[in-house]
Amino acid sequence: MAFHPAPSINLSRLRELLDGINQFGREDDSPGLNRSAFSESDMAARRWLVGQIEDAGLHADIDAAGNVIGTWRVEGDAPLVMVGSHTDTVIAGGAYDGALGVAVGLECIKAMKEAGVAPARSIAVVSTSDEEGRFGGMLGSEALAGIVTEEWVQSSVDADGIRLWDVMSAAGFDPARVSRAALAKGSVAAFVELHIEQGPTLEKAGKPIGLVDVISGVCNWTIRLKGVANHAGSTPMAERADAFAGLAEVAVAIPEVIAAHGTDYAKITIGKVDLQPNTPHTIPGEAEFSVIFKEAEEAAMRRLADGFAEHVRRAAQNHRLEHEIEEHSWLPPVALDTDLRQAVREAAEAKSIDYLVLPSGGAHDAQTMTALCPTALIFVPSKGGVSHSPDEQTSWDDIAIGADLMLATLMRLTTSTRS
Amino acid sequence: MAFHPAPSINLSRLRELLDGINQFGREDDSPGLNRSAFSESDMAARRWLVGQIEDAGLHADIDAAGNVIGTWRVEGDAPLVMVGSHTDTVIAGGAYDGALGVAVGLECIKAMKEAGVAPARSIAVVSTSDEEGRFGGMLGSEALAGIVTEEWVQSSVDADGIRLWDVMSAAGFDPARVSRAALAKGSVAAFVELHIEQGPTLEKAGKPIGLVDVISGVCNWTIRLKGVANHAGSTPMAERADAFAGLAEVAVAIPEVIAAHGTDYAKITIGKVDLQPNTPHTIPGEAEFSVIFKEAEEAAMRRLADGFAEHVRRAAQNHRLEHEIEEHSWLPPVALDTDLRQAVREAAEAKSIDYLVLPSGGAHDAQTMTALCPTALIFVPSKGGVSHSPDEQTSWDDIAIGADLMLATLMRLTTSTRS
Repeated sequence: MAFHPAPSINLSRLRELLDGINQFGREDDSPGLNRSAFSESDMAARRWLVGQIEDAGLHADIDAAGNVIGTWRVEGDAPLVMVGSHTDTVIAGGAYDGALGVAVGLECIKAMKEAGVAPARSIAVVSTSDEEGRFGGMLGSEALAGIVTEEWVQSSVDADGIRLWDVMSAAGFDPARVSRAALAKGSVAAFVELHIEQGPTLEKAGKPIGLVDVISGVCNWTIRLKGVANHAGSTPMAERADAFAGLAEVAVAIPEVIAAHGTDYAKITIGKVDLQPNTPHTIPGEAEFSVIFKEAEEAAMRRLADGFAEHVRRAAQNHRLEHEIEEHSWLPPVALDTDLRQAVREAAEAKSIDYLVLPSGGAHDAQTMTALCPTALIFVPSKGGVSHSPDEQTSWDDIAIGADLMLATLMRLTTSTRS
Repeated sequence: MAFHPAPSINLSRLRELLDGINQFGREDDSPGLNRSAFSESDMAARRWLVGQIEDAGLHADIDAAGNVIGTWRVEGDAPLVMVGSHTDTVIAGGAYDGALGVAVGLECIKAMKEAGVAPARSIAVVSTSDEEGRFGGMLGSEALAGIVTEEWVQSSVDADGIRLWDVMSAAGFDPARVSRAALAKGSVAAFVELHIEQGPTLEKAGKPIGLVDVISGVCNWTIRLKGVANHAGSTPMAERADAFAGLAEVAVAIPEVIAAHGTDYAKITIGKVDLQPNTPHTIPGEAEFSVIFKEAEEAAMRRLADGFAEHVRRAAQNHRLEHEIEEHSWLPPVALDTDLRQAVREAAEAKSIDYLVLPSGGAHDAQTMTALCPTALIFVPSKGGVSHSPDEQTSWDDIAIGADLMLATLMRLTTSTRS
C-alpha cells in the first residue's frame, strides 16, 4: 500500500467555491442573496455547481426533484455516504446558510481525492432543493427519502399562492416524476450535514462546534382574518371590524402562549403579513399572515398550536372577524442517530476539537433524511446568532474547524464498509 | 319677469352622470373603483367630466392643480358660488365617495338652466384633485384656497414613496405652477359640498340629511421600526428584535390611548403595514406602518399623538428596535361657517327635510376651502356606515333628498347678490 499524506482542507479553495455559489442571487431590489427554490438564480447556481462537481472528477446529476448530486463512485455494493446541505436561500438571505455545507462537502471530497485516499464506499455530495421551505416542506431531501406524495406536489403553493407544480415546470422539471428522486432503502449508509447554527448558543458558550441531538419540529400555518374595509376617519372605533387590530391582538399573545404551553425551545414567529387594501385611510378589511411554530417535543408543539388557535378565535370574536387557519405542514421533532453522532464525536475528540451537544431550532435536511438513513448534523457558530439575513456571518477560523471535522468524519465513515 | 317652473332634479340624468364617472377606475386586480390621484383612470375621468360640463353649456377648465371646474358665468362682479366635491378615490374605493357630490353639483346647475333660472351670480361646479390624500394633504382644494407651498409640492410623496412632482409631471402638469390655481380672496361667496357620511350616524338616527358643524382634524404619520431580521427557527424568543412584535404592541395600545386622551370622536387607524423581508421563516427586521389620527378638538389631537408616540417609544425599547416617526400632515379640526349652515338649514326646513347637525370624521374639501370662503357640508347616509370600500352604498331615495336640498340651497345663494 502506497503512502499518502493525510487529506487536508484547502481553505482558500473552499472559500472560492463558496463565493462561486454566492455569485448567484444578488438583486437590485432585495439585499443579500436571493436564491428562492426553483427561481432563475437558484437554478443558475445549481447548473454552476454541476460544472464544479464535474471539474472535481465526480459524476454530476440534477435529479427529478432538483437535487444536485455529485458522486465519487467506487467499486462494490457498499451503501454510500452522503454529505451536503442546500444552495437555495430565503429572500434576502445570507451567504452561509446551506451553501457552506455544500461547499464543505465538495471540498472534503476534493481533499480526499487529492491525497490519494481510496474510500471503501462511494461518497456523494448533495445540494438539496427547497430546503428553505418556500413550498412548506423540504422537497429535495423529502424526495430523496421517498416521503413526498404526488398529491402534495400537486397542491403545494408558496406564501404568494404560486404553485410548486408551475415553478418546477417552468424550471424544466416534470413535477409528476418527483418520486423518481427517491433513493433505494439501504443504499445510503449515512447522511452528514454541516450547517451554520443560526442561533447564538455556540458563540455564547465559546464552542466552535455543535453536535445536534434533536431537530425541532416545525408547523407552518397561514391565517386569514376577514373584517370590513371602512373609512378610517368616520367609522367609530366601537363599530370597526379591523382585521389588523385582530392580528395585533393575536401577535401580542405569543409570549403568553409559549409560557403556558411550550418548552424552553418553543418559538412562534409571524414573519409575513399582508393587509387588504393596505392603504393609510382605510381600516384593513383583511389580514393574511404566516405563523411558524418550532418545538423540541411534539406534544408541546401540539399544545402550542392549539393554544395559539384559541387566541385566534378569541381575537376574531373580539373584533367581529371571520377567521381561517390553513396548515401547510407539520414536521414532528426528530432525534438524530446516536451511533452516527458518536462517530462524529470521536472524530472531534481525536482532533481535540471542543464541541457542545445541542438541539437544532431550525429544520434541516438531516431531519427528513432520517426517513432514509442515520444522519448527523454539525453546527458552526453564527456571529450574533444572526441568519436569514444579509448580515449572517461565520468566522473562517470556525469554518476551518468545521471543515476539518467533516473531513475526519468522512474518513472514518468511508475507510471501511462496516455499516 | 317671465314665469318659469321651479327647477327640479332629474334623478335618472343624475344617475347616468354618476355611472359615467364610475366607468373609470375598474381594474382586474383590485375590486371597486381605483382612481388614485393623477393615475391614468383619475385623469381619464377628469377629461370625461370636462366633456359633460361643456355639453351642459358651461365653461370647462382643468386648472394647474388638476381641479376640474365648470363655470356658469353671469354678468357682474358678484363673488361666485362654488359647488362640488372630488372624483378621485382611494384604492378599491366605492362609487359614491366624492363622485356623488360632483354629479349632484352639475345636475343642480343643469336643472337651474333647464328651468330658465337667471342667477344673480356665477355658479361653478368643481371636482378637486387628490381629495383622498394620496400625497398626505388635499392638493386640489388647498391650491384653490391658496395654501399650498411650493416646498410641499416638491417634497410630497405617497405611501409607496412615489413623488407628487413625478406623477403630476407624468399626467401633463407643471407642478411648479400649482400655486396659479389659487382663487382670488373675495372672488368666492361660498363653497357647498354634498358628500356621503361615510359613517353610521345618520342611518342609526333615521335622518336623510346631516349638516356638518365641525370637521375633525387629521394627522398623518409613517412610523418605521427597525430590529434584526433573523431565523425564525433558531433565534430564542428572548433574544429577538422583532419589528412586527413591536408594531403589534403599539397597535393593541390604541384603545388605551384613546380612552386616556381622546374625545368621543377620536379615531386612530393603522391602515398600511409593510414588513421586511416579509417571509414566513424570517423574523421581521423592519416594519413600516401608517397611522391616521382623527379628532374633533385640536388639543385632544395633540394629546392623542403624544400618547401614541410614547407607546411607540416604549414598544421600541421593549423589543430592542430603532424607531422613527415621520409626520406627513397635521390638519387641525375646522368649525364650518354658522351663517352658511343656517342658509342650508332654512332651505331644508322650507322643504320639510329632516336633518341632524353632526361633526364629520372624514376630512373634506369643505375643510380646506374655509381658508378661502364660508363653506357648508351636507351629508347623505351611508348604508351600514361603510365607505372606502366597493360595498359603499347610499339609497337613491336619500340621494334624491340630498340633491333637492343642494338645489334649494344653490337657489337661495344665487338669486341675490347680498353676500
